[in-house]
Amino acid sequence: MNNYRLTVSYDGTRYLGWQRLGDPEKNARTIQGKLEAVLARLAGQNVEVHGSGRTDAGVHAAGQVASFRAPIDLPPEELRAYLNRYLPEDIAVISAERAEERFHARLHARGKLYRYRIRNSDMPDVFSQRFEYLVREPLDADRMRRGADYLCGEHDFRPFCSSKRTKKSTVRTIYDITVVRDGPLVTVDYHGNGFLYNMARILTGTLIEIGRGDRPPEDIGAVFAGTAAAGYTAPAKGLTLLRVDY
Amino acid sequence: MNNYRLTVSYDGTRYLGWQRLGDPEKNARTIQGKLEAVLARLAGQNVEVHGSGRTDAGVHAAGQVASFRAPIDLPPEELRAYLNRYLPEDIAVISAERAEERFHARLHARGKLYRYRIRNSDMPDVFSQRFEYLVREPLDADRMRRGADYLCGEHDFRPFCSSKRTKKSTVRTIYDITVVRDGPLVTVDYHGNGFLYNMARILTGTLIEIGRGDRPPEDIGAVFAGTAAAGYTAPAKGLTLLRVDY
Repeated sequence: MNNYRLTVSYDGTRYLGWQRLGDPEKNARTIQGKLEAVLARLAGQNVEVHGSGRTDAGVHAAGQVASFRAPIDLPPEELRAYLNRYLPEDIAVISAERAEERFHARLHARGKLYRYRIRNSDMPDVFSQRFEYLVREPLDADRMRRGADYLCGEHDFRPFCSSKRTKKSTVRTIYDITVVRDGPLVTVDYHGNGFLYNMARILTGTLIEIGRGDRPPEDIGAVFAGTAAAGYTAPAKGLTLLRVDY
Repeated sequence: MNNYRLTVSYDGTRYLGWQRLGDPEKNARTIQGKLEAVLARLAGQNVEVHGSGRTDAGVHAAGQVASFRAPIDLPPEELRAYLNRYLPEDIAVISAERAEERFHARLHARGKLYRYRIRNSDMPDVFSQRFEYLVREPLDADRMRRGADYLCGEHDFRPFCSSKRTKKSTVRTIYDITVVRDGPLVTVDYHGNGFLYNMARILTGTLIEIGRGDRPPEDIGAVFAGTAAAGYTAPAKGLTLLRVDY
């Protein structure tokens, strides 16, 4: 048995998300399911692939990290080529390497960098619209930045998460949020030690409401205090997992 | 009645091509059909949109030009905004302007610039794969350039066209072909006064066969002379109409 580490990129548009699903037809529409199917063929037995974390249906990745153990003894470069030969063109293995015996993509992940792309225009860019969310109302990036400042640090992000009844800890740390405007494109980068279900999308929806002038940046404090509701859940299509830290 | 000129971009993946089709369900999967449907709603009557030329199913455009006459009296900027509000996100009107009474997008087109994008790699770029054709065998761009030189000038391009039984002239002039390699990306730009059905894709397939070393650049002469067959038809997805000259 060897332990491998993969860096994977995908256009999540066609998929139900990263995570494997029980129903075989649905599982074929998950990234994990696609990877496991190709690896099972190569290994001649079932292979369980661990991602650094789930990405929601429709969310993309430029640098998702995954690990798996399998009775495969190939130079990593050949493994990478094999996977890219049999995976669909909207999933690509950017790199493959032998990992230490104990490496586990989910358990050892220390941080993640997510990027949310907003096209603030009355017109989509047809060549990147699958990876951007079109917002027609003018956004004030400075206001969004002021709101983002309230989000950084260690907080209980339960109000910014979709599964509110979880018993697990919902405390997370956001190291940094950067809001950059480049022409019509507003990019919001979230760097944190972990993200709850839908959290990056709800943070973005809230910052968009602030950027549109619908609520003040200080509202973030009220959301944490439970006296105001978080914003809406921005669409999955604008979100990309850029990088996982170990 | 006013005459308008539009510059239109689209991701052709989902479409059966530019050209309107008789069957209403199929017509809704054409770019012309989509534009005409939105314009008919605005004008309150049927509107016929003329593109500079057809693009095949799956071919994209960054700068297709179209014109139409309609009893619409709107500032062009408002017309553009209206169209972008009601068109799907994979079609965008980049600019709208009032045109001279006699302007006709097809009849007055003098030249077109098409770009074919080849990713010469064992791995797709998932974020641009809809607009690129993945070729895994190494391509020699210099050889492709030498082949391209034989294509430039005025020729009867019938051997490089899919509908060989047309009675219309198949003589066209290619002003220039540029083949540029930038890392794994090989870009072939075709600038000419007109392109026959599938012509840009068959030229590309032929140049790929030359670039792979399967045939010599001089074969182009033999194809024109009728003593060798043209290459295969490269997939539509790699082709984009960049610009139309008037």
